[in-house]
Amino acid sequence: MHNTWSENREGIKASSSHVTGGSLINSDEIKNPGALEAEEAPLGTDTASAMGRDGSGSNGKEKNNDYGQVGKRSSNQYHGNSKFKRIIFDKNPAPVDMSKLLSFGYVEDDAIGLSIQVKNPYLDAMEEDILYHFSLGTKTHNLPEMFGDLKFVCVGGSANRMKAFAQFIHQELELPGNPEEVSDICEATDRYCMYKVGPVLSMSHGMGVPSISIMLHELIKLLHHAQCRDVVLLRLGTSGGVGLAPGTVVVTDKAVDYSFLPQFEQVVLGKVVTRSTELDEGVANELLQCSAELQQFPTVIGNTLCTHDFYEGQGRLDGALCSFSHEDKLEYLRKAHAAGVRNIEMESSVFAAMCRVCGLKGAVVCVALLDRFEGDQITSSHDVLVEYQQRPQVLVSHFIKKRLGRAV
Amino acid sequence: MHNTWSENREGIKASSSHVTGGSLINSDEIKNPGALEAEEAPLGTDTASAMGRDGSGSNGKEKNNDYGQVGKRSSNQYHGNSKFKRIIFDKNPAPVDMSKLLSFGYVEDDAIGLSIQVKNPYLDAMEEDILYHFSLGTKTHNLPEMFGDLKFVCVGGSANRMKAFAQFIHQELELPGNPEEVSDICEATDRYCMYKVGPVLSMSHGMGVPSISIMLHELIKLLHHAQCRDVVLLRLGTSGGVGLAPGTVVVTDKAVDYSFLPQFEQVVLGKVVTRSTELDEGVANELLQCSAELQQFPTVIGNTLCTHDFYEGQGRLDGALCSFSHEDKLEYLRKAHAAGVRNIEMESSVFAAMCRVCGLKGAVVCVALLDRFEGDQITSSHDVLVEYQQRPQVLVSHFIKKRLGRAV
Repeated sequence: MHNTWSENREGIKASSSHVTGGSLINSDEIKNPGALEAEEAPLGTDTASAMGRDGSGSNGKEKNNDYGQVGKRSSNQYHGNSKFKRIIFDKNPAPVDMSKLLSFGYVEDDAIGLSIQVKNPYLDAMEEDILYHFSLGTKTHNLPEMFGDLKFVCVGGSANRMKAFAQFIHQELELPGNPEEVSDICEATDRYCMYKVGPVLSMSHGMGVPSISIMLHELIKLLHHAQCRDVVLLRLGTSGGVGLAPGTVVVTDKAVDYSFLPQFEQVVLGKVVTRSTELDEGVANELLQCSAELQQFPTVIGNTLCTHDFYEGQGRLDGALCSFSHEDKLEYLRKAHAAGVRNIEMESSVFAAMCRVCGLKGAVVCVALLDRFEGDQITSSHDVLVEYQQRPQVLVSHFIKKRLGRAV
Repeated sequence: MHNTWSENREGIKASSSHVTGGSLINSDEIKNPGALEAEEAPLGTDTASAMGRDGSGSNGKEKNNDYGQVGKRSSNQYHGNSKFKRIIFDKNPAPVDMSKLLSFGYVEDDAIGLSIQVKNPYLDAMEEDILYHFSLGTKTHNLPEMFGDLKFVCVGGSANRMKAFAQFIHQELELPGNPEEVSDICEATDRYCMYKVGPVLSMSHGMGVPSISIMLHELIKLLHHAQCRDVVLLRLGTSGGVGLAPGTVVVTDKAVDYSFLPQFEQVVLGKVVTRSTELDEGVANELLQCSAELQQFPTVIGNTLCTHDFYEGQGRLDGALCSFSHEDKLEYLRKAHAAGVRNIEMESSVFAAMCRVCGLKGAVVCVALLDRFEGDQITSSHDVLVEYQQRPQVLVSHFIKKRLGRAV
């Protein structure tokens, strides 16, 4: 069953015709991103969407699919993007039982356009909301004044890299002031760093799903409190490539788990809830188009395997623990590749899941630092790695400038 | 079945007679730590150890228990501690099939005493091992010279806090030089910070299991390459208390998962492997004894719930997503408390699991910043929080000084 799905996705997304940049461009194949944004995905391309991990659907009472009500929202709100309706384990297309939803504490959002949808009925009744890991709060800071004009939130693991991106986008947008003097809004804490440059926020999120999850909860609350609208969220990261030349940039189609399924398992009060991890197709295609225009480095759209560690989960032979052979590793990577996986990182699944649930358009743009078929250790020189890490920044900067009407 | 286990543990570990510090000391109940280290735990106290998550044992071929061979090691190596033999899902006490183990690539370790046991047959054959996230390597750094004398590795989430601990332990050990001038050995990267102060290493690990997991793999390899012996690993952290006064320090007995079972699920090449998360009983009791001697703050031994996020997984009502009621939250916390859980954090499970597998004595010492029965937001003043965060440092410093024969 996985293979059926994999082969379908392979044909649609990860074929070489979707590789752009350098000599790999085949621009005839690249559709107009504006048109794609409102385009319905062909039915039947995602045969895994109704399957459970073992191909047998939901496996017991501990498995739940929450936030299924998003499919009921107006098509206006989602620009007719059908993906929001295709939720894993959601075999039953019957109307959502609103009384049940409300009993879970959900509230319907009357927002027009792409407002930030916190899904927490308690939040607005709180006298004060302390965003603890940001050292910000609704009583101590005027969040609408500080953040109300944000349109792009760019996040990445490393604090140094996100500071560098803030300085880079400051230059690229030709904003007044000295780019070197960007200041860390979260300087009272060392959990994350945060820089605001015009309509762009640049933030670090640390490594791994739990670390980015804390940041996303507080970021989404911040955007809600600040009354932001039409925000695009972009993760700029590094990754291991799967059958790609080092330096290739991967724009994520779906974030997949260790079984190559596009889902994220969230524990809520001791119960496992499964959420979909499909990202916004329109933004992904827009980014691919940007790479075609830049012609500086190869870029592909593919699935991204999101793991919870760097060594055993990714099949590395160089960790403190390794209980498998080189051939076992290669077999797993081959299966991943057959399922459309083009890179491996550690944050995309919860990023995609939370973007979907909260009505945020999100994209994951990671450079592959090495080809995992060739090795495990990152041995490129410092200068080469620095240049690779700039590639997602260059691509996202071009995307932002185009959206703002600033691209040349 | 969980209740049986919980009540047993409750009686053994989390009763008020094991609370020390301030007016809560009952030193008659505190056993000699030296004697405890070699003591066999009473049989039958851990009825959950042969159960699966749903109480029905291993649930299918995707569940494996690796590193089961540790039970075969000499009792000399583990000081007769019986806990290493009690592995979850290990219902079959038959002799280990060595040919099968060796086929997985394990090698038997001839180490004498408590050497660091990397469980990776490929490691010593590598021409160079680059500890990428530390910016260190076996070719570029003389690791035995830099780290060979280490006896204590102290880790915590925050870089600033672990720098402060390095400066504090420098003063406490009355080492030559200016404590203010400790330098970050990992300054070439911003993933982690690392300070060496005499026999003590102070390192940050970021937030969440994946982040600390990367650090532990590279740390254990570092200790192996540096030929360190008899190292104790201590995590100093912050946490949410479960039925404890804010400021109480919790020394972890077992790290438990969302079902309150003492296990950690690690994905290895697409398969879920379950590892035990019991920590060293001798070190925990030694720490409790230290608190009794200090008489500065209350300390308890209890189970620690390790979650993969800060909001939904911990039952917080103040995240961007919340689909449960206040009563649902309280019910989950009550169940946790009944299972012996005294605090909640986000790193202890993989810390405990990796310490066990690699033959490292480990302890988790976290202060509770709030009582989760009373609320979700951390509202204490900055000064109060700073003082709370120093408590694990004060306790661990006393432990280190005693071990070095420096305590007054």
